[in-house]
Amino acid sequence: MPSGWTRITPLGGLGEVGKNMTIVESEQGLVIIDAGLSFPRDEHLGVDLVLPDFGPLRERRGDVRAVILTHGHEDHVGALPYFLREIGAPEVWATRLTLGLIQSKLGEHGLLRSAELREAEPEQGPVEIGPFRAQFVRMAHSIPDAVAVVLDTPGGRIVHTGDYKIDHTPVDGFRTDVGRLAELGNEGVDLLLGDSTNAERPGVTESERTVGEAFRHIIPPLRGRVLVASFASNLHRVQQAIDVALETNRKVALVGRSLRKNVNIAKSLGYIDVPEDLLIKPERLGELPPEETMIVCTGSQGEPMSALTRIAYNDHKHITIEKGDTVIISAKPVPGNELRVHDSINRLTKAGAQVLHQEIAPVHASGHGNAEELRTILALLRPKNVMPVHGEFRMLYAHGRLATDAGVPEDRVILAENGSVVELADGRARIVDQIDVGSTFVDGLGVGDVRDVALRDRRHLSEDGVLIVVVTIGGENGRRAAAPELVARGFAEPGPLFDEARDEVARTVAQCLDGGVAELKLLQEHIHDALGQLVYERTGRRPMILPVVVEV
Amino acid sequence: MPSGWTRITPLGGLGEVGKNMTIVESEQGLVIIDAGLSFPRDEHLGVDLVLPDFGPLRERRGDVRAVILTHGHEDHVGALPYFLREIGAPEVWATRLTLGLIQSKLGEHGLLRSAELREAEPEQGPVEIGPFRAQFVRMAHSIPDAVAVVLDTPGGRIVHTGDYKIDHTPVDGFRTDVGRLAELGNEGVDLLLGDSTNAERPGVTESERTVGEAFRHIIPPLRGRVLVASFASNLHRVQQAIDVALETNRKVALVGRSLRKNVNIAKSLGYIDVPEDLLIKPERLGELPPEETMIVCTGSQGEPMSALTRIAYNDHKHITIEKGDTVIISAKPVPGNELRVHDSINRLTKAGAQVLHQEIAPVHASGHGNAEELRTILALLRPKNVMPVHGEFRMLYAHGRLATDAGVPEDRVILAENGSVVELADGRARIVDQIDVGSTFVDGLGVGDVRDVALRDRRHLSEDGVLIVVVTIGGENGRRAAAPELVARGFAEPGPLFDEARDEVARTVAQCLDGGVAELKLLQEHIHDALGQLVYERTGRRPMILPVVVEV
Repeated sequence: MPSGWTRITPLGGLGEVGKNMTIVESEQGLVIIDAGLSFPRDEHLGVDLVLPDFGPLRERRGDVRAVILTHGHEDHVGALPYFLREIGAPEVWATRLTLGLIQSKLGEHGLLRSAELREAEPEQGPVEIGPFRAQFVRMAHSIPDAVAVVLDTPGGRIVHTGDYKIDHTPVDGFRTDVGRLAELGNEGVDLLLGDSTNAERPGVTESERTVGEAFRHIIPPLRGRVLVASFASNLHRVQQAIDVALETNRKVALVGRSLRKNVNIAKSLGYIDVPEDLLIKPERLGELPPEETMIVCTGSQGEPMSALTRIAYNDHKHITIEKGDTVIISAKPVPGNELRVHDSINRLTKAGAQVLHQEIAPVHASGHGNAEELRTILALLRPKNVMPVHGEFRMLYAHGRLATDAGVPEDRVILAENGSVVELADGRARIVDQIDVGSTFVDGLGVGDVRDVALRDRRHLSEDGVLIVVVTIGGENGRRAAAPELVARGFAEPGPLFDEARDEVARTVAQCLDGGVAELKLLQEHIHDALGQLVYERTGRRPMILPVVVEV
Repeated sequence: MPSGWTRITPLGGLGEVGKNMTIVESEQGLVIIDAGLSFPRDEHLGVDLVLPDFGPLRERRGDVRAVILTHGHEDHVGALPYFLREIGAPEVWATRLTLGLIQSKLGEHGLLRSAELREAEPEQGPVEIGPFRAQFVRMAHSIPDAVAVVLDTPGGRIVHTGDYKIDHTPVDGFRTDVGRLAELGNEGVDLLLGDSTNAERPGVTESERTVGEAFRHIIPPLRGRVLVASFASNLHRVQQAIDVALETNRKVALVGRSLRKNVNIAKSLGYIDVPEDLLIKPERLGELPPEETMIVCTGSQGEPMSALTRIAYNDHKHITIEKGDTVIISAKPVPGNELRVHDSINRLTKAGAQVLHQEIAPVHASGHGNAEELRTILALLRPKNVMPVHGEFRMLYAHGRLATDAGVPEDRVILAENGSVVELADGRARIVDQIDVGSTFVDGLGVGDVRDVALRDRRHLSEDGVLIVVVTIGGENGRRAAAPELVARGFAEPGPLFDEARDEVARTVAQCLDGGVAELKLLQEHIHDALGQLVYERTGRRPMILPVVVEV
C-alpha cells in the first residue's frame, strides 16, 4: 500500500456541467487534469465565458508541473489559454488530436510557446508527468481521441475517466479499452474520479453508429437539399454525414468557422476521412441541383450568430431554405438552449423545410454513458474509493448510488464540491478541507473584472430599467441652480409621471437644503428614496434610480 | 350548405404556446373563444405577463357578444380580467368549474359585475350565444371540466377543440365524448380548429391514471415525508396524490396560495374529493411523524417564489427537507424552465431528499393528445377544413400533415398566424386578410406602457450595464462649470479607465465648444460617440452610454 498522501481539489465541474478542472497534488508538486470553460447561464448577464477560479494556484505557480487534457471539448480545454497566461505550466499533455485542437487555440491567443506540448499515447507504457507516473486509456466519446488518465501517486492509484461512453462499435474503431481497464482493476485502483453526466439515466447510451444508421435511413430517398447541424467538435457525426453524402452522390459544404477549422485539423491528422473533391464552397452550392448537395453546419444549439441560426432567419449569404429541403438537427439542446433551438425549428419549418430533431427522430446519441455503463466501469476497476465528477449534484449523487450498489462502502463514496480538498492516504479518500472557489467571468476583453456586484446591477437594470435624475445645486445661496433633469431607459415613455417625479425631486431637494442636509451622499439618498417610492406607488416597478448631484 | 360567411381571427396561440384567443365573427356580431395569457420569455426582460393585443377590438366594443372559455387554464382565461376591463363583453360562457375559477379571479380584480357569467352545459342541447348556436362537448384535459365548442354560424359549422387528450380512463370519469364527436362528424363539420401542442409526438399520451398508478407504486413503501409538486390547476393530479395519502395514512398539507384556492373552489363545487380531516395546516406538519405526512405543493416549474423553490432553498417557514424525504415533481418543465427545475432538483437532493421527476420516473402525463389522438379526432369529425391552433409553427405544421393524411385536401388545411383573417364561406376556409397583432406586456401596475423599445433598452442595459456622464456647462463664457461626473452600474469597478474616460469627455466637450458646437443634442452625441469608442477599445464592451449635459 502506498504510504504517502495525494490531494485532489476540483476547481470546476462538480455541482455543474462545464468548466472541468481538477488539481492533483502531492508533496512533490501538482498536475492539473483538464482546464475547461462553461458557457454563461441566464443569470450571467452579458458574460461571454465562465472560467474556473485559478485563485488557489495564484501563489503556487512554481508547483504546477503539467496540465493533462482528457479530450478536446471546450468544457475540458477552453480555459487553457487563460490558465497558461495567468498561472502557466511547463508541460501540457494530451492525445494527438487534442494537441492539434489546442495548438490552434493557443496560436489564436499568441501562446504557442507558453508550454511544451507533449503527446499522450494510450498504446504506450507509463510516462512521468510531474511527480506522478501516468498512463492513458482510450475512451469512446463524442470527439475522437478521448482518454482516461491513470496516475500512480504517493497516496495511491487514481483513475480519472474523462468523459466517456462504452461504445463497442465506435465510428473510428477506437473502443473504450475495457481490457486495459480490467487490467487496471486487477492491479488495484484506489480512487476513481468518474464522469457522472448520465448517471441518472437507466440502461445504456446508443452507439454513435446508430446515428449513421438513421442518416442512411433518412437521407437516400430525399430529393431536396440536406442540412446536418451538429457540434463542430463532433467529428464522428461529421464523418457519418460525409459518408452518407458520398453514398448518395451529394457534394458537401462545411458551413461555420469552428467546424471548418476542426475538420481541417482532424483531416490533416488523419482523424477524419474526407475525399478532397467531395467538398464544395458554400458559395458554389447554387451551381448544383439540390439533390446533389449536403450542408454540414454549426448551430445545433440555436446560438445567435451560428450558421444554422442565420440560415433559419434567412440571414445567410449563400444559403436560403427552400421547400423540399430537410434539416437534421443532430444534437440535443443543452439545458437552457431549448427555446432557441425551438425557434430555429419553427423558422426552418416555416421556410419550407422538413426538420428532424432528436425529439422525433433517432438523429442524436449522447457521448456520455448511462447508468449501466457506469456500473460496468465500476465492475472493471473495482475502485476502493469513488469520487463522482462532471455533473450537477443530482448526477454526482446518482453516480454515488451506483458505486454503493457496486459494493463501495458508503463512507468511501466522496460527494465533493468545487473547492473540496479530498485526501487519498492509506487507501482511503476523505474530504479534509474546503477552499473558496468561485467563477471567473470573461466579458469582452476583460477577464475577471466583472464580478457578482456588476451582475446584480445588470439584473436590476434588466428588470425595470434605469431612472437617472440630475440635480444641480450651487450659486450664491447654495440652492439648486437648474431644474432636475430626468433620463429614463427601459422604463416607460415620459409622461405625466415624469413631471410629477421632477416636482417630487425638486421638493425633496428643497426640503433637504432647508433642513441643512447639504452633504452630497445624504442628499442623493433622500432623492433616491423619494423618487423610488413615488415610482413604485404609481407603477409597481422598481427601476434602478441613480441620482447625480452636481455642485457648481 | 350555409350561405353566409364567418371570419375567424386568432389574436394569440398560433406560432406560440400560450395566450390563446380567437375571434369568431359574422355580420351579426362576434364572440371570443378563450382569453389567455402567456408567461414572459427570456427576451421579455422584467415583464410579468404577456396578453394578446386587443387592438383589433378597441373600435368594435359594441360587436362583442360573448366570451366563451374552453377550460380554466391561465393560457385560456388569464387575460379575461384585462379584456373585460379594456373591451368588455356582456356574457362570459364556461363550464361550472371554469366559472368558479374565473369568478374568484374577477373578484380579485374587482370585476365581478362586469359581465354576466353563464354556465356552459355539455349535456344540454344547443344555446344561443351572440349570433351563433353553440354546443359544448366534454374533452379530457389536465384540468376538470374542459370542453370543445361547436358553433353553427352563417359560414358553416365550426368545432374548436380547446385543449384535450383522448383519455378513456380519466380520473374524474369524464371522458372525451367521442360518441358526441362522431355524431357531429356525421352531421357535418365545416371547419375544425384543433389543439396542436403534441402533434409532433407519435402514438398516444398516457392516461392521467398512469400517474396515480406510479404514485401507488412509489409512495406506500416510503418511510419519510412525501412531497408532490404539480401545477396548482391540475386537480386530477392533486386528487390522485390525496387518494394515495388516504390509503397510506398520511395527512396532507396543501402548500401554495393558488393550490389552496383551486382546491377550495373545486371542493365546494364537487370536483375534488377531500375528506375534511385528511388536511392539516403546514405549520402542524412537525407534530406528526414524517411517514404520516404528505405535502402537495406548487413550484413544479422552479418558479422563484413558489412553495417548492422556497423549500428547496431552505427558505420555507414550515417545511425543511430531511434525509429520507421523497419529492415527486409531477410535471414536465415548460420549455425555458428546465434550468430552474434542475436547480430545484439539485438543491433538494443535496438536502437529503430522493427526487423523482419525469425524466427518471413515470410521474407525469401530458394533458394534450399525441398524433394518434389527433388522427382519431380528425376521423371522428371528418372536417372539410382544418385550421391547426394552439402551438408553435412546427406543431401547427405537424397537425396540418395529420389532416392531409386524413384526407383533407392540402388547400383546405389553413396554416394561419396570429392576425390571420380566415373566412369560412361556401364550405371553404381561406385566409383573406392579415391584420397586425402584437403582444401587450403587463409590468407591475402598467398594462401596455412597456413596449419593444423599453425591452430593447433593458436588453442593452443587461448586457454591459450603463455609463452615465454628466457634464455641466455654462457660466459667463459658456464653458463647462464642473468636471464631468461618471457613474457606472453593471459595468466594472471604477479604475484608471474612468480617469481616462473623464479626460476624454472633457477634451470632447472643449473641442465641441471651441468649434462652436453648443447645441445640447449635438454635444451629447459627440460625448456619446467619443466615450463609447474609448470604452470599446479598452474593454471590448458596449455599455449603454447616457450623456447628460446640464446648462447652468
